[in-house]
Amino acid sequence: MPRIVLLNVGTAAPRAVHRQLWLLREGDVVVSPLVPDEDFLRYVCGELGVDRAALRFVSAGENLTDEALTAPALIHEVRALLAEHDAWELLPAHHTEGVAAFADLCGLPGDTGLRFAAQRGPVLLNRKSHFRQLAVGADVPVPDGTVVTGPAALAAAVERYLPRTGTVVVKRDDDLGGQGNVALTLKETRPLPGTRATLAARAPEAAADVLWAELTDAQNPVLAVESYHRSTHSFYAEYLIGPAGDVTFLNSGTIRRRADIDPAASELVWVGLELPAELPPGAGARALTASARMVALAAAIGYRGHINVDGIVTDTGEVLFNEANARWGGSLALHAAGERLLGPAYLDTHVLSGLRDVPALPLPAALDTLRRHGLAFSPEIGEGTVVLGYDPSGERPLECVVLAPTRERARAVEAAVRDAVGEVRP
Amino acid sequence: MPRIVLLNVGTAAPRAVHRQLWLLREGDVVVSPLVPDEDFLRYVCGELGVDRAALRFVSAGENLTDEALTAPALIHEVRALLAEHDAWELLPAHHTEGVAAFADLCGLPGDTGLRFAAQRGPVLLNRKSHFRQLAVGADVPVPDGTVVTGPAALAAAVERYLPRTGTVVVKRDDDLGGQGNVALTLKETRPLPGTRATLAARAPEAAADVLWAELTDAQNPVLAVESYHRSTHSFYAEYLIGPAGDVTFLNSGTIRRRADIDPAASELVWVGLELPAELPPGAGARALTASARMVALAAAIGYRGHINVDGIVTDTGEVLFNEANARWGGSLALHAAGERLLGPAYLDTHVLSGLRDVPALPLPAALDTLRRHGLAFSPEIGEGTVVLGYDPSGERPLECVVLAPTRERARAVEAAVRDAVGEVRP
Repeated sequence: MPRIVLLNVGTAAPRAVHRQLWLLREGDVVVSPLVPDEDFLRYVCGELGVDRAALRFVSAGENLTDEALTAPALIHEVRALLAEHDAWELLPAHHTEGVAAFADLCGLPGDTGLRFAAQRGPVLLNRKSHFRQLAVGADVPVPDGTVVTGPAALAAAVERYLPRTGTVVVKRDDDLGGQGNVALTLKETRPLPGTRATLAARAPEAAADVLWAELTDAQNPVLAVESYHRSTHSFYAEYLIGPAGDVTFLNSGTIRRRADIDPAASELVWVGLELPAELPPGAGARALTASARMVALAAAIGYRGHINVDGIVTDTGEVLFNEANARWGGSLALHAAGERLLGPAYLDTHVLSGLRDVPALPLPAALDTLRRHGLAFSPEIGEGTVVLGYDPSGERPLECVVLAPTRERARAVEAAVRDAVGEVRP
Repeated sequence: MPRIVLLNVGTAAPRAVHRQLWLLREGDVVVSPLVPDEDFLRYVCGELGVDRAALRFVSAGENLTDEALTAPALIHEVRALLAEHDAWELLPAHHTEGVAAFADLCGLPGDTGLRFAAQRGPVLLNRKSHFRQLAVGADVPVPDGTVVTGPAALAAAVERYLPRTGTVVVKRDDDLGGQGNVALTLKETRPLPGTRATLAARAPEAAADVLWAELTDAQNPVLAVESYHRSTHSFYAEYLIGPAGDVTFLNSGTIRRRADIDPAASELVWVGLELPAELPPGAGARALTASARMVALAAAIGYRGHINVDGIVTDTGEVLFNEANARWGGSLALHAAGERLLGPAYLDTHVLSGLRDVPALPLPAALDTLRRHGLAFSPEIGEGTVVLGYDPSGERPLECVVLAPTRERARAVEAAVRDAVGEVRP
């Protein structure tokens, strides 16, 4: 069945949009925030063996908000393309209310997932407060903590949960990517994984007033407060819930972070994801058992589409879950590249190492550099690097992914890529 | 809460009973098919740090069938011991109808698991035919195949499922441990993992008549017929479903088999289980995702207690499940030894390698041999061997388990154990 792919990834930032091109298949109608860079699109098509002419794009010229998705001109343009076939599969990045309205306006049949989206159901899975509620109900382990609805309760919760590890994390309810997570600690205030800033917890009441004002708004009048645990591994598992509620495991990975070059930086640099997750075997099995339960619950309450569940292994070997994201994960583009370049069992034979911080180069220079150094992905040897995400303005770093048969080889290729790009940069 | 442990393991064979002593805790009342060998019991207690005097045994003097479990004299003896405490936790190896009757006769309160057992509910999970039905309904992958109710249907099914891999396996419905599995093949008739015998599939109709007569009876008037797949890994995952239907992952492992010394033998020798399962990462994650679904279904239909789900990774990388066993798995005694000797996170730090085929020695000679060669388990270094199961008559081999920090160390210790025991044997 041909597909309508909605690149409603929450932004019109070129790199974030371009990396999703790895998901495309011939016949796709792609609704996008922007007209993709033609050179990059042709590069991706070449790597995937996809005929560029078999892809059609409809550009909104702006971030694909619900409003943009339902704009009459866009609907008109999409409907004209849909007339060619009787049945289409809808593949949105987020199942928002606007996606349900878009489907309706395009004359696509309703289904469980769209009805759930029309009621803003995925919010039940994405908010930190709802996640804690549903996770404990499904017997999925989460850090000690609570959900608070005002600054006094926030101060009390900080005092209550601080003793266990000496650090608590206060989470904005609708946060993405840890940007709304602030740590309060009795220890040294150095950057911590998964948080935007670390503050001293000397005066919880004053801090609570400031954080309440900063992290809440009219649509997000609650915060989650949790004991913060030092972790040996930050991992995720990503699944697809099919139309019938069937769950397919797609991929898992760990998050690589490093200290910023700037010692005054308040957060760690996110290097990238590494697939598959390599966890201690018992912890890994407990994690997958619990995340399967969370995803089964998501399917039971009516969510359809992609979902990832994120957690940590603590320094005492405990598995704790932090959040679910009912949308395409940051991992999905890497998964698509792995599956398409190496085959469906790629996790059994290869490691994929995402590099989000490769210094910006124009695409031709980047590809030329990889090829000249023998670092471009080779299907024959099943190893090498592809440019996953790209910002034609050069404002954002390149996003690359190294595919290699072992973790050691992935590290070696990564080092060679960094050296090679470093040489080319002025 | 003190426990009543029912060693209704389906046999009164001493080795099979003795290996379960590793599960015991102080305060347990143990209902057993036999009076355990006192030397072996004291050895196990010594390794576990359990006070021998804090264990009480009630022996039925025979296999703990449902009839034996409900014999008035046994109930009388058990009730006298139960009078000491108000509440007891019941821990049976199998949740049979007789266990529910035993609980009732002992005045223990009913619960979901016992009510389910009283209706013979666990049979729904243990029979090959029911397993296939429930597994496909739960979207758990099983080999292509079907359930047949007569010899003509059996012959037709063999012809239908033979082409895919050239071999089919015909499964007795209430089989344990592959003893009722017979392979029919178009290829060479050598022993295959998980089957009792391999027959030539030249004349399916004649073979069907013979197999139907041999593998069915009045209580088991159906057979399962499946395509047989060559596997790279045979694995299981074991779980505990708690009183509230909560699921805990306990352990996973792979099955080690080897060719018999006798080249005419029709089946492979089962060397033992190795914990944790080491599968290719993607296959391993898909396996745990599917087995979690199967176990969630078992909990939903009312089963409580231990359950293991067994499967393979085929030579093409596919994960397929063969059966569930709603009872203590062969792995549970190893799990208990690992957890008690190495701590609850033992799967993250150690490998346990079961050896079911160590030549029989009297217990003192076996322990002396291990100690003299420095091969006995040492809590200080977290490595070594324990005697897991023991037949005082010397008729059955010793069952040992090697605990070691790596798979390589486990192999080295195993080789040293085999050498050391070989020297002592006359």
